[in-house]
Amino acid sequence: MRRVRFRDSAGNVRGGRWTVRDGEEVVTAAAGPYGRIAFGDETFDPDEVDVLAPCEPTKIVCVGRNYADHADERDEEIPDRPLLFLKTPNTVATHNSTVTLPAGKERIEHEAELGVVIGEQCRNVDAATADDVIAGYTPFNDLSNRDDQDREQNWVRGKAFDGAAPMGPVIATPEHLADDATIEARVNGEVRQSESIDKMIFSIPELIEEITTYMTLEPGDVIATGTPEGVGPLSDGDEVEIEIDDVGTLRHSVRFPDG
Amino acid sequence: MRRVRFRDSAGNVRGGRWTVRDGEEVVTAAAGPYGRIAFGDETFDPDEVDVLAPCEPTKIVCVGRNYADHADERDEEIPDRPLLFLKTPNTVATHNSTVTLPAGKERIEHEAELGVVIGEQCRNVDAATADDVIAGYTPFNDLSNRDDQDREQNWVRGKAFDGAAPMGPVIATPEHLADDATIEARVNGEVRQSESIDKMIFSIPELIEEITTYMTLEPGDVIATGTPEGVGPLSDGDEVEIEIDDVGTLRHSVRFPDG
Repeated sequence: MRRVRFRDSAGNVRGGRWTVRDGEEVVTAAAGPYGRIAFGDETFDPDEVDVLAPCEPTKIVCVGRNYADHADERDEEIPDRPLLFLKTPNTVATHNSTVTLPAGKERIEHEAELGVVIGEQCRNVDAATADDVIAGYTPFNDLSNRDDQDREQNWVRGKAFDGAAPMGPVIATPEHLADDATIEARVNGEVRQSESIDKMIFSIPELIEEITTYMTLEPGDVIATGTPEGVGPLSDGDEVEIEIDDVGTLRHSVRFPDG
Repeated sequence: MRRVRFRDSAGNVRGGRWTVRDGEEVVTAAAGPYGRIAFGDETFDPDEVDVLAPCEPTKIVCVGRNYADHADERDEEIPDRPLLFLKTPNTVATHNSTVTLPAGKERIEHEAELGVVIGEQCRNVDAATADDVIAGYTPFNDLSNRDDQDREQNWVRGKAFDGAAPMGPVIATPEHLADDATIEARVNGEVRQSESIDKMIFSIPELIEEITTYMTLEPGDVIATGTPEGVGPLSDGDEVEIEIDDVGTLRHSVRFPDG
């Protein structure tokens, strides 16, 4: 099941499904509590509904250098425990959106990542049972403003600017994610990153155990699990796609306010 | 006016005032929209109501090394622009609470700070008009887990653990804060930090301008403006007080789970 949140024609927020009917990708409204579909059998073209972020995180906990080849390309050591950093709710950007980047910056890069969406409030989770707290997975772009990131201790200007976390369009429930699913970033159709998620250094259960040693995670919180090799700079008007096999494809564009 | 949030005897969250009547500090319920006091003229002993955090931040933006004498004692340079870091909503702890610290840590320190509470959604605020977006001020303790902080790039384990941001009990509206108000930390009644807020390196309007260059601030978000000299380690059972002249006094204790 691939869950989507969208705004209906009356402007109300609805939960629904992203599915395939007669060979076409469509969005359907979810069944109500009595099993009846709110909109009958109506379906919507995903590009014509107002897709919202698939969840509303109170925080996004990100992991740096979790693929060895990306640590190499940034000329950095592989950490002995997960390198954690934070994105705040102002960073969330939706599928099909245009992210307006901070003014006056030259080097802002895409980082394709697998987002893990938390399903229940949890603390001190053991890796062995960590799958129980996962609602599903979503494509995630860890947009990174290198101009600032490379000169600050904590990556706040670099990683937590408005719109720095495009995600969605769906939360795919766990059975959709193969252990060796490929994550791919394309910019204007050209493949920039493509790697199997089985190359992660710290596994998803290990990340959940480490993070919840310190922090309570809430339903809708997201763990961004790191990016593989191939990150690179974006230009004004670029169209970015982040695809994860059988999970979904996130699309958004970027705008540099200076043109 | 010093606003407080508390839980009434029915368990409902109420807004009210922290005030002095007949020489005693009391909490009163706020007037309703038609000017009538919900609880008549009933007053409550502040130590006997369930005081909640004075606001519900979506994020807390903290400032490091914003007093020169504290940068000195940590043997660190004074930054050329504000050193920013983040605390997430899980860090909020209330007045009169006991904060259970992460297990297995030895050096967890108090940092008395002035918290600035934002009153309206804002982005790209000019320092000259920044006062317009301030709802008021609150005492804030930037609890810091040095065991982890001193060995991580981004201070997540070090600064964003559950309960790492005790704040309150009130939001004092701006007229309560003198330019040279003293901020003081006491541990078990002994003064550990005491300094005038006029020793800040970056002023509150400068901080708001810098932060909102990158991030939208929301009503209830908090800027923690840095700590003066005198930070130091806490022990199991310590009682901490953070007092800011005419704003209020935050009290909480800490528990080390290992005893």
